[in-house]
Amino acid sequence: MDAEIIAFDVFGTLVDWRSSISAALEQAGRSAGLDADWPAVADSWRSRYQPALARVISGQRPFATLDILHAEMLDEVIAEHQLEGIGDRAGLVRAWHRLTPWPDSVPGLTALRARHILTPLSNGGVGLLTRLARAAGLPFDCILSAELAGTYKPDPRVYALVPAFFDVPPEQVLMVACHPGDLQAARRAGLRTGFIPRPAEWGLATAPAPPADTDVVADDLIALAALL
Amino acid sequence: MDAEIIAFDVFGTLVDWRSSISAALEQAGRSAGLDADWPAVADSWRSRYQPALARVISGQRPFATLDILHAEMLDEVIAEHQLEGIGDRAGLVRAWHRLTPWPDSVPGLTALRARHILTPLSNGGVGLLTRLARAAGLPFDCILSAELAGTYKPDPRVYALVPAFFDVPPEQVLMVACHPGDLQAARRAGLRTGFIPRPAEWGLATAPAPPADTDVVADDLIALAALL
Repeated sequence: MDAEIIAFDVFGTLVDWRSSISAALEQAGRSAGLDADWPAVADSWRSRYQPALARVISGQRPFATLDILHAEMLDEVIAEHQLEGIGDRAGLVRAWHRLTPWPDSVPGLTALRARHILTPLSNGGVGLLTRLARAAGLPFDCILSAELAGTYKPDPRVYALVPAFFDVPPEQVLMVACHPGDLQAARRAGLRTGFIPRPAEWGLATAPAPPADTDVVADDLIALAALL
Repeated sequence: MDAEIIAFDVFGTLVDWRSSISAALEQAGRSAGLDADWPAVADSWRSRYQPALARVISGQRPFATLDILHAEMLDEVIAEHQLEGIGDRAGLVRAWHRLTPWPDSVPGLTALRARHILTPLSNGGVGLLTRLARAAGLPFDCILSAELAGTYKPDPRVYALVPAFFDVPPEQVLMVACHPGDLQAARRAGLRTGFIPRPAEWGLATAPAPPADTDVVADDLIALAALL
């Protein structure tokens, strides 16, 4: 595929947010003498993500960075799970800046970077994504974020950022994600699409199927690099 | 210095635009059977830069990327130097995406990156800077551009991008440049400032003096890394 630029979803596609956030919650909880089903608490936090983004996309509230939304969601999660004793909420919000990459992410990106410009295209903010890429060693060429469009994926204005900044037709951009909805929205914006299954994102055994019109499907990023 | 983020001017500070653009002009001229004082033609092109930016900063014209401004300036330079036979003007505009770094730029940035987040903060667009960083091997953590503020340096909105994206006070950002005016504007925006002399930028023997309140002055980026 001759796409000059590959744009990557990050949470789930490149990094294992669930294990990392569960561990951060568990550590903060233990320090406060609290016990809980920490992966379930992490899932509860993440499950508030789409509704929070939807309020921004629909215009119900003005744009706020994902750090701000994460802090608001965390307050709700703490109340729901009766974890009010937990300390350092700001530190937990910053845990989203240091997430563990999947084992194939760094070698796969490194191989893909030899012939393509690589960028995240994530709902994380520019600062979050830059710190995350440093901490996880993700070798990007630049950092593009939904923040630069003042909205969130799947708003089409986010996908349009990539061809606009690089002054190329949208078919020169390949969007890679493990979420079918992300790829459907990228396709509607004219981008090419690549799917990687990440069943472990939610601790499951099987991943959702890719959209039928996905341009390329690969088991992981190392396999994707071999296919392109 | 405990600045978390270092932002770099690019044209002149990190890369030798004059030699690179002179060579590109000479190659395009020779292909067309033309001869000229190519460094002088390069200087003529670059000398149109500040007036072109000033029209955007003042609001006389809406924001246009540096690629667009470079193309307009090139048309003027070609007319002034009677080089109408020169071909591939788009290729010459793209020559600004592939400029040779100064010998200390890559090792200096590599050393600085161990303890600081590195970004360009340049009037080049996001696409230009990303392609330039790849071609020159400049190891940035993200790509910030005046384009993201819809104006150009020295407009204070450009400098304000860095603390805003990283959610830090401005004194956590060190702006490094070889141009006193860039550092004066960065200082007015609350950033710390670092000066590197680059007399060869314009083929001269001596560089301008840094502003008196510059936080750190070093001979080159390797020396700067040793100082910080």
